[in-house]
Order: sequence, then C-alpha cells, then structure tokens
Amino acid sequence: HHHPQRSAGVVGAAFCRGQSRSGVEEGPDRIRAAGLLDRLQQRGCAVKDYGNLVFDDVVEPSGGGGLRSVAAVGGANRRLSEAMKAVKEDGHTAVMLGGDHSLAIGSIHGHAAAVGQLSVVWVDAHADINTPLTTYTGNFHGQPMSFLLHELQSKVPVLPNFSWVKPCVSAKDLVYIGLRDVDPAEHYILKMLGVKVFSISEVDRLGIARVMEETCDYLTARGKKPVHLSYDVDAIDPSVTPATGTPVVGGLTYREGVYITEHLCGTGLLSAVDLVEVNPLLAKTDQDVQSTVNTAVDLLLGCFGRLREGNHPADYSLPEP
Amino acid sequence: HHHPQRSAGVVGAAFCRGQSRSGVEEGPDRIRAAGLLDRLQQRGCAVKDYGNLVFDDVVEPSGGGGLRSVAAVGGANRRLSEAMKAVKEDGHTAVMLGGDHSLAIGSIHGHAAAVGQLSVVWVDAHADINTPLTTYTGNFHGQPMSFLLHELQSKVPVLPNFSWVKPCVSAKDLVYIGLRDVDPAEHYILKMLGVKVFSISEVDRLGIARVMEETCDYLTARGKKPVHLSYDVDAIDPSVTPATGTPVVGGLTYREGVYITEHLCGTGLLSAVDLVEVNPLLAKTDQDVQSTVNTAVDLLLGCFGRLREGNHPADYSLPEP
Amino acid sequence: HHHPQRSAGVVGAAFCRGQSRSGVEEGPDRIRAAGLLDRLQQRGCAVKDYGNLVFDDVVEPSGGGGLRSVAAVGGANRRLSEAMKAVKEDGHTAVMLGGDHSLAIGSIHGHAAAVGQLSVVWVDAHADINTPLTTYTGNFHGQPMSFLLHELQSKVPVLPNFSWVKPCVSAKDLVYIGLRDVDPAEHYILKMLGVKVFSISEVDRLGIARVMEETCDYLTARGKKPVHLSYDVDAIDPSVTPATGTPVVGGLTYREGVYITEHLCGTGLLSAVDLVEVNPLLAKTDQDVQSTVNTAVDLLLGCFGRLREGNHPADYSLPEP
Ligand SMILES: [Mn+2]
Ligand SMILES: [Mn+2]
Ligand SMILES: [Mn+2]
Ligand SMILES: [Mn+2]
Ligand SMILES: [Mn+2]
Ligand SMILES: [Mn+2]
Repeated sequence: HHHPQRSAGVVGAAFCRGQSRSGVEEGPDRIRAAGLLDRLQQRGCAVKDYGNLVFDDVVEPSGGGGLRSVAAVGGANRRLSEAMKAVKEDGHTAVMLGGDHSLAIGSIHGHAAAVGQLSVVWVDAHADINTPLTTYTGNFHGQPMSFLLHELQSKVPVLPNFSWVKPCVSAKDLVYIGLRDVDPAEHYILKMLGVKVFSISEVDRLGIARVMEETCDYLTARGKKPVHLSYDVDAIDPSVTPATGTPVVGGLTYREGVYITEHLCGTGLLSAVDLVEVNPLLAKTDQDVQSTVNTAVDLLLGCFGRLREGNHPADYSLPEP
Repeated sequence: HHHPQRSAGVVGAAFCRGQSRSGVEEGPDRIRAAGLLDRLQQRGCAVKDYGNLVFDDVVEPSGGGGLRSVAAVGGANRRLSEAMKAVKEDGHTAVMLGGDHSLAIGSIHGHAAAVGQLSVVWVDAHADINTPLTTYTGNFHGQPMSFLLHELQSKVPVLPNFSWVKPCVSAKDLVYIGLRDVDPAEHYILKMLGVKVFSISEVDRLGIARVMEETCDYLTARGKKPVHLSYDVDAIDPSVTPATGTPVVGGLTYREGVYITEHLCGTGLLSAVDLVEVNPLLAKTDQDVQSTVNTAVDLLLGCFGRLREGNHPADYSLPEP
Repeated sequence: HHHPQRSAGVVGAAFCRGQSRSGVEEGPDRIRAAGLLDRLQQRGCAVKDYGNLVFDDVVEPSGGGGLRSVAAVGGANRRLSEAMKAVKEDGHTAVMLGGDHSLAIGSIHGHAAAVGQLSVVWVDAHADINTPLTTYTGNFHGQPMSFLLHELQSKVPVLPNFSWVKPCVSAKDLVYIGLRDVDPAEHYILKMLGVKVFSISEVDRLGIARVMEETCDYLTARGKKPVHLSYDVDAIDPSVTPATGTPVVGGLTYREGVYITEHLCGTGLLSAVDLVEVNPLLAKTDQDVQSTVNTAVDLLLGCFGRLREGNHPADYSLPEP
C-alpha cells in the first residue's frame, strides 16, 4: 500500500506571535539541526530547503480588542501563504516547519491556492477553532481553523492584515485527531458544524488503526482530494514531547503519533504537512528538548515513507560469499 | 449518551490506619487544594463539601492476632458509613476522599444503607479481598471486600468495633478492573465466588473500551442498580500516580483510567465514588505528588461529566461580529 | 488455558563480544541477584542453576573483514550450544541469560540439537538477520538469525570457529515481534523469505492479543513444535528498559512485553527462553538499571506461569474462624 514521496519542499516559519511564549520561533532550525533533511535524502527523497521566511516588521494597531499581535499574524501568514503556494507549484510535497499553529492559516491557504479543494487532518490536543470573538487568551494559535472554514465566515470579524484570507476548507473536509482540551465555544462549533472528531477518548475506544481507517474513509468518501496534515506536537503526550507551549496530559503515544503519519503517507494523498509548536526553550532538560525535536523528525520521516518495519531499495541485491 | 450529574456531596476521610505508611491521611486536603470543588462548580455541578470526618480516639485491644488497628478501622468506618448514608439521603452523588482503601467498608456500607442493592466497580492493582485470616500484612486496606460480600461471611471472624458491619454486596454485583498483584488466597476467593475480574491482562486483551462495555453489560444484566465506584489510584501506572503506598508496575494508563470514569458517568448509574490511597508523602519529587493528585482530580471530574472531547452549555450561543 | 512449567534449567552466558559495549556480560548475575531463582521456586517451579559458562580464551585471526571478534563469538556459542543441549536432555525448560544476542546462535542450535525442529519467536527492536556480508557494524549480535536459517546458508561465508554451526530453523518457523529498526538488507531478506513479522506498526494495528493469537496460529498450523523464545530487552520501550546497548524509541510497553510471555506460556509449547542485552552499565541511574533488570525477571516469570490475575495452589483451602 506504500507510495513513495518524490520530493520534499521545506519552508521554515520562525514565528511565535500567535502565542505568548518565546522560543517556538526556534523550531525550524532545531528540527533541521536534528538531521531532517539528511535523513530524508538518505531515504531517497529529494529535498529542497526554501529556508526560513523573512517576515516584515509590523506596527500593531492600537486597541485590538484583546487580540494579540493581529497585524503581525496576518502579515506573516500572508507571506507564508505565498511561499506554500510556490512550493506546491514547484511540485513538492510541502513541509512547513513552525513556529506556532497560527501559521496554519497561511500554510493551508497557500496549499489550497495551488491545488484547489483539499482535506485537512488536524492532529492536536486542541481544536484551534476559536473565533476572534470567543478566544479567552487572544492568541491566534487557538483560532486558525475559524479563518479557514467556509462555514464560519459570518462569525469572524474584519481584522487588520487579514483581508487577503479567503476561506478555503469545508467543515466536511476536516478531521481532528487527539483532542483533549477543547473550549466550550469550540465544542459548540464542532457540534454545530458536524465536524468529524476523534478525540483522545475515541482513540481509546477505537484504537489508532481504526481511527486512521475511518479518517481516510470519511475524507475520501466524497472523492480523493490532496491531504493537508497539520500536526501540533502537543498532540503527543508531554512525557514524549514536553518542549511545547500548551502541553496537555493524556496525549497520543509516540507510536500512535507515528502510526498516523505512516498511514497517511500510505494513502498517497499527502500533499503538505505542518509541524508546529516545538518550543526548545520550554523544557526542563536538554533530553526533553531532544525527545521533542527527534519526535518531530520521526513524524516527518513517517510522512515521507519511512516504515518501522523497514524499507529497502527496489533494486537491492543480497551479497553472496 | 451523557447524563449530567446534579450535585456532588464530598466527604473527606483523613484516615491512614488501614495500612502502615503515614501520609495517606493528607489525601482529602490535597485533592481539595488541587481545585476539585471549584472545577466541579465551573462545570455546572453543584457541590456540597461535608468536610473531613472527625474520628474518635480508639484504644486497641491487646492481642489482635496480627491485625493492625482493628478497633480504629472498625470505628472510623462506622463513622464514615453514617456520613455516606447522610450524603445519599441528601440526594447527592457521593464522593469519598481517602485515606486508605479500608475506608471502602464504611463507604459502601453507608451507600447501601441509603439506596439498597448496588453494583460495585473496584478499580485497583489489588483485589483487597483477603480475610482477616488470610492477610499476610495485617493491614485492613487489603481486606475491605471480605467484610462486604454476603458470600464471605462465614470466613470472617468476629472483631472488635466491626459488629455494626452488615454484608451488603453480592459477588455477582462486583467487577474488578486493573488487578495485577493478587495474593493466592485472594485468587482462590475470586475463582471460588466466580467474581468478574478484568485484570490488566484482560485490559491488554480486550482494550479498555470493551472492558467497560462488558463491565456495564454484566452489571446491568440483572437490572440497573446504583453503581459504587471504588477507585484506588494505584490502579494507574506508577509513572503517572507514584505517590501511593503500594505501587505496582504495569498499571492502567492515564487515558484508560479516565476512560473508565467517562464511561461509568455516561451510564447515568454512578451513585458514589471513592478516591483513595493518594499519599503525598510517598513521592520523590513534588512533580510526582502533583501528577498523582491532578490525576485523582481528573478521575473525579470524569465521574461528573467532564469529557475529553469537550462540553458546552445547552444554551450556548456563538457571538457574531 | 494454563500449563504449569515443571522445571527451569538456567544457564548464564556472561558474554559481550557480539557487540562493542562492555557491561552486558553482567546480565546473568544481575538477573539472578534480582531474585529470579527464588521467585521461580516460590511459585512452585523447580530450578536448576547450571551457573555461568566458562568460555575459552580465543586468539582472533588477523583480518576478519570488519567482523568483530569472530573466533570468540564462534567459540562461545559452541560452548553454549552444548550447554543448552544438556539442559534440554535433563528435561528442563531452558533459560539462557545473556549476554548479547549473538548468543542466540548457540542457544537455538543447542535447543534444536536436543529436540529437533522448533519454532522461534524473536522479540526485539531489531531483526538481527544481517549476514556477515551485509552488517554495517561488524557486530555479531546483529546477525545470529542468518547463521540459523536453512534458507540463508548460501549467503553466509565460511568463518573461523563457526564450522560446527548447522542451520536448524526454517523461515516459516520464525516469527518476529516488536521490530522497529531494520536495516535495508534485513528488510530485503525478510521479504524475500516471506518471514512473518509483527513490527511495532502491526502491534499498533492489531493489538498485542491478536498478534499473539496470530503468532501461535501461524506457528502451529504446520504442527505443534517446541517454541524457542528469544527475548531482547530492547524490544521493550527504553523508558522501561533503558539499560541496554541499542535502545530504540517507540517500543513495546511493559504490559505488552509481559503479555507475550503469559500467552506463550499458556500454549504449553515453550521449551527454551533467551533473555539478552541487559547491560547494567548503560543507564543514567540505578533506578534505570533496576527497572531493566526487574522487567527481565518479570518476563521470565511470565514464561513460567506467573499470571497478573494471580495464581493459587491446586490444593488451597480457605481458613475459617
Ligand atoms: Mn495547535
Ligand atoms: Mn495544541
Ligand atoms: Mn485498594
Ligand atoms: Mn491497591
Ligand atoms: Mn537482538
Ligand atoms: Mn535488539
């Protein structure tokens, strides 16, 4: 069932202003330093590194209604959207290294701009679907899906630097996996829109294998569309990925986390991946940082065909004495 | 499938003499200090805190046949039985915060005194079903079920301060979950009485979701009775709940532990819960204590309707710009 | 379904030259010091300890083609093969305490010499099926299965001190469980020979209970043969068994690890067990060593009839007042 990925186009988005804790902007370089590109290439995957995006300095408007860094988030995502569109137009499977999860706005927007309708698999402890009017914290990393869903546009106010955003995802093309810390407003939205959710409770009930089967059956029932995987490392249990800004107990195991990537890669539909919320400054020990970063790398390798059962080149021949 | 709980009546039982390690008497106050009552109220659950019980000073009889603190255990449980009966008569879902697991004698006794026949779900690494004649340690926290089961009365000797105890549970109304350290006498009793046991091995085999389905099918096959959940934190793996007196490797995961509470709450039959064997003095680090206490709180929240997929008020309305 | 084991014959193989890190030769004594023999006897299992084997000093030939300690590995395994044959001829269930996993050559060879055709269940993060011509490291602990399989003999060169080795296992009598770090050559071999593999990904998909059912169905479909269980502690997750030479993230849980032994014991076919790659020198803390060694003991107890649900003697009688 395995489809090799041809090439990875990697975009770094060293951006942290969608939340309030510094350090998450170091994610892209730390994930690269852990050997992502080399290991993809060793696996026979072509890699193009587009480097880290340069974001304009932005003056925030006064006021802002409790929203944090509105203009910066809007501007950075506009830049990212263009970059992701270019990566897809170059023919790569796109990899966006965050940075915080507000970057999914630009990443998914740019992906859709290049390929049209797509399916989104959102792996996260959080639903990140607050609107600017329901957010408790004012952080945009808790809101990206509200900007992207067609169905929520009447609920989202006009904001500075967000006018470029066109909703591009239908609620029926979205699946959540791993949720376990969902605000009341978010829960209301998910129920109102009938979004498919495999919370951690459903992972417990069904097992990760059936969750992935049902995820793919659900998404492809209305035709096979390119898949955008938006992976927040806080989906994984904090004992494995502690270096993140909003850890929540009771997460996916390392094995479940990797299984998700193996399965999605195996569908041959994976078209772009976000790997976000790695924050190397939020860990008690260097070992905690390493575990988080190495897990991020393993998740990405899984997206590009690495199987835990092993792989061998098609032309391998066994030496004889 | 979700039935909201109306109100919680919380009884603290700061009692440790059913075992030999000091500290477990601090459980009730540590669980309250972690915010249990506030968090229940924030969820829309009415809460009445009955405070911590005051136990009489007791002079132990000389002799005692190797049994530890017989009269104290008998006396404290008599007091607790009365308190639990009162909580149920006040119309609450009862919460007993231990203290050690010998307190299940009074808790279940008082519960049954108020509501009549009940089902017991005992979540524990241990069966706690030694009789006073089979116990190796003399600790009563390893014996409570022997006092409560009709079928074992001919095996239990007369003891000082225990004459008030009337057996009130039938073996067929009892289900164990999580067992992994069972004495030979206990294993003999469980087999002799045909008690339904989902040891950790069965949890491995069936998965926690099917264990809970089978538990509830089994208990309700003879009619729906109020459920008493007696939850020993040592059921959970010591990596999660290390601050307890008799930890045993290979326990339930945090997720399995919470799943049990979500599922039982969803039946609408949950009538009383014990949360016992949190011992804040038995941990290497403060983080270990916090993990144990926070897990205890999460288990209790699960008993009162908290779902990991989220919840929202029935009258929620989404703000528009 | 449970078949009591009659007696355990324990052979220590304090040998480390199949790999490059010192300390693994301390495995046998550390596992004994953790109480293995006493605990087997307490369970009613007869135990004969054959002590630790004495290996001849060996002069390595010059050259060696990058292979490490060829002659020592060949010589030690010859000695071990004779010892295992003797243990089986004495009528015991054989227990080989390693030492590194190169010792499976002698252990399985000697077992087969005594009982004839056998099934092999290999529980490991690694396939250990490189040939001397495909190994990257030159370490023999990554190669033992290549010497034992009939199907690979044309791929294995003549080596000093290995002429005594007669291939004795058919590819169809071998099942792997737990693989997650497989070299390309190894993956090629496994596919070429059609070896039954339950990698960690299959354990995720099927669950450990179904993996064990399918393992036993597969192996007994062609007749019930004695089972040789070759258990590398690195099969278990490094959070549980960190004191080992080549740990790999994402391993079996403690519970899955023990379940394997409970299930195989229950078949009544278990005839010999290797427990290898415990290296007490490779751990940051004494607690890490204890966890590794205690897990090794628990795996072996599971092989000899210990059940987590408990056990009781057939003639147990419950005391009455
Ligand atoms: Mn997120
Ligand atoms: Mn998150
Ligand atoms: Mn208990
Ligand atoms: Mn217990
Ligand atoms: Mn091995
Ligand atoms: Mn190994």
